[in-house]
Amino acid sequence: MIFEVSILGSSSATPIYQRHPSAQVVNIHERFFLVDCGEGTLIQMNRYKIKFHRISHIFISHLHGDHYLGLLGLISTMHLQGRTASLNVYGPAKLKEIIDIQLDYSETELRYPLVFHPLDATTPACIYNEDNVEVHTIILNHRIPCTGFMFIESHKLRKLNKESVEEHGIPVEFFHELKNGKDFVRPDGTIIPNSQLTLPPPPDRRYAYCSDTIYDERLIGIVRGVDLLYHEATFMDDRVERARETYHSTARQAGIIARNAGVQRLIIGHFSARYKNLYPLLDEAKSEFNQVTLALEGDRFSI
Amino acid sequence: MIFEVSILGSSSATPIYQRHPSAQVVNIHERFFLVDCGEGTLIQMNRYKIKFHRISHIFISHLHGDHYLGLLGLISTMHLQGRTASLNVYGPAKLKEIIDIQLDYSETELRYPLVFHPLDATTPACIYNEDNVEVHTIILNHRIPCTGFMFIESHKLRKLNKESVEEHGIPVEFFHELKNGKDFVRPDGTIIPNSQLTLPPPPDRRYAYCSDTIYDERLIGIVRGVDLLYHEATFMDDRVERARETYHSTARQAGIIARNAGVQRLIIGHFSARYKNLYPLLDEAKSEFNQVTLALEGDRFSI
Repeated sequence: MIFEVSILGSSSATPIYQRHPSAQVVNIHERFFLVDCGEGTLIQMNRYKIKFHRISHIFISHLHGDHYLGLLGLISTMHLQGRTASLNVYGPAKLKEIIDIQLDYSETELRYPLVFHPLDATTPACIYNEDNVEVHTIILNHRIPCTGFMFIESHKLRKLNKESVEEHGIPVEFFHELKNGKDFVRPDGTIIPNSQLTLPPPPDRRYAYCSDTIYDERLIGIVRGVDLLYHEATFMDDRVERARETYHSTARQAGIIARNAGVQRLIIGHFSARYKNLYPLLDEAKSEFNQVTLALEGDRFSI
Repeated sequence: MIFEVSILGSSSATPIYQRHPSAQVVNIHERFFLVDCGEGTLIQMNRYKIKFHRISHIFISHLHGDHYLGLLGLISTMHLQGRTASLNVYGPAKLKEIIDIQLDYSETELRYPLVFHPLDATTPACIYNEDNVEVHTIILNHRIPCTGFMFIESHKLRKLNKESVEEHGIPVEFFHELKNGKDFVRPDGTIIPNSQLTLPPPPDRRYAYCSDTIYDERLIGIVRGVDLLYHEATFMDDRVERARETYHSTARQAGIIARNAGVQRLIIGHFSARYKNLYPLLDEAKSEFNQVTLALEGDRFSI
């Protein structure tokens, strides 16, 4: 089953060298989640053949413009293109005001329901949970309230051990309870333990999106062992002081978080405009953690 | 002296085929005026080598997103890049609220003065007048309050007729008064009429920007004889009814306005997403007025 992250933009606040600000699409089983929506996201979706009408959930990490200024254009275009399906937007409560004032002043009455879900940037929460897919907030430490997002494809059900089930002649109508972990009890009272009849569910697959954040070791426990970690790397380590002042991280710090959290793979982004060539940032992160890749526009990362 | 219009975007509300929404830069004598600022304007400026720090006046026609959603990104980037020079923004009064709420919620305190000039969309006015350059509003008839802009390079001063001035031995300190139209009076009371000493000023050069507007014949008198007219052409004439309903114009209607106003040259833009190939719109406008060009991204029109 598909679990894929498409990068639409990974530049920090100042777009330059034709790089675009933050936006990603997470595709889990053909459900499409947009994560941040910097200016130009719609154009980038067109460029990379992502059908914006399939997006039904948008997650905005915080209210710095490079993370949400493309949202109004997307909302308006969905309206103009005749969308009727509801759109769920998750973000800081004040984002709702920003959306409303602009729809109001352009005299736009949306043809579809826009369901706004205010996020609490102080306590982590599960904000989406449908059909084996969960999204949780990650509390980030930035200059203004900011949340990252953890996408989880979770398999709650155990898998039937077909051979063993057949051998014991378990009736089909009991399969669901087996998957839920119940033992089988024969009419004569004999118990066949669940562990003999099922296999553990496949491991969850997890993607953690962490942008923007100061270097914060508390993240290590939160993203421990994820399959893919996006961690911002606005600066290189010779500007570690500047990173601290602006509540950002360096490429080396992103590598340290990834290594200490034992993640499978790291992608770095949110690159400062001062870096035309991004490979030195990659090398720097790699000096701490080998499985690292630049999150470049148009790239897709499969989990 | 340079008087040039650079097109950064000429798509209507839905950006598609890598076309960008409305934005233009008018360069008059190396003073750079930004006219509308759709999403992606900053990226487009980078692409077409327009130095955004040289922009000091921005004119926003109305509050439909495709005409202003790039403004916050531009304002923020100017801030991040250390701008100190003041920035003048002209637009509907409500635009100020939209700017303020977003700066407020991102906790951005601009390092430069942003001077906001609210525009009245009911009465035309001269909103800028410095060193031979004037900008006037044009009242447009759109679904929400909307102004176009007339850029005028105006020569108020007459030119010295050097030969005649020498011949009559006019002292240098009187040249300025000559340019202002005064006659020269000798100590003995003899009068040399100004018309013998000067030539008329060169004709004004004028660029009229009209987007968005329903077909409105009142425009003819307003843009009469301009050197360059930008008129929106959202649709083709087979959708004239749709154009009327949405307060837009067709390519043919743009041609009619240009012909009846006797303009030197017409450029059309604000193309609907329904037209991938724009040349049929050009042909349609051309059937009414021959001197017409598509306003395509990256194109520059010299006056």
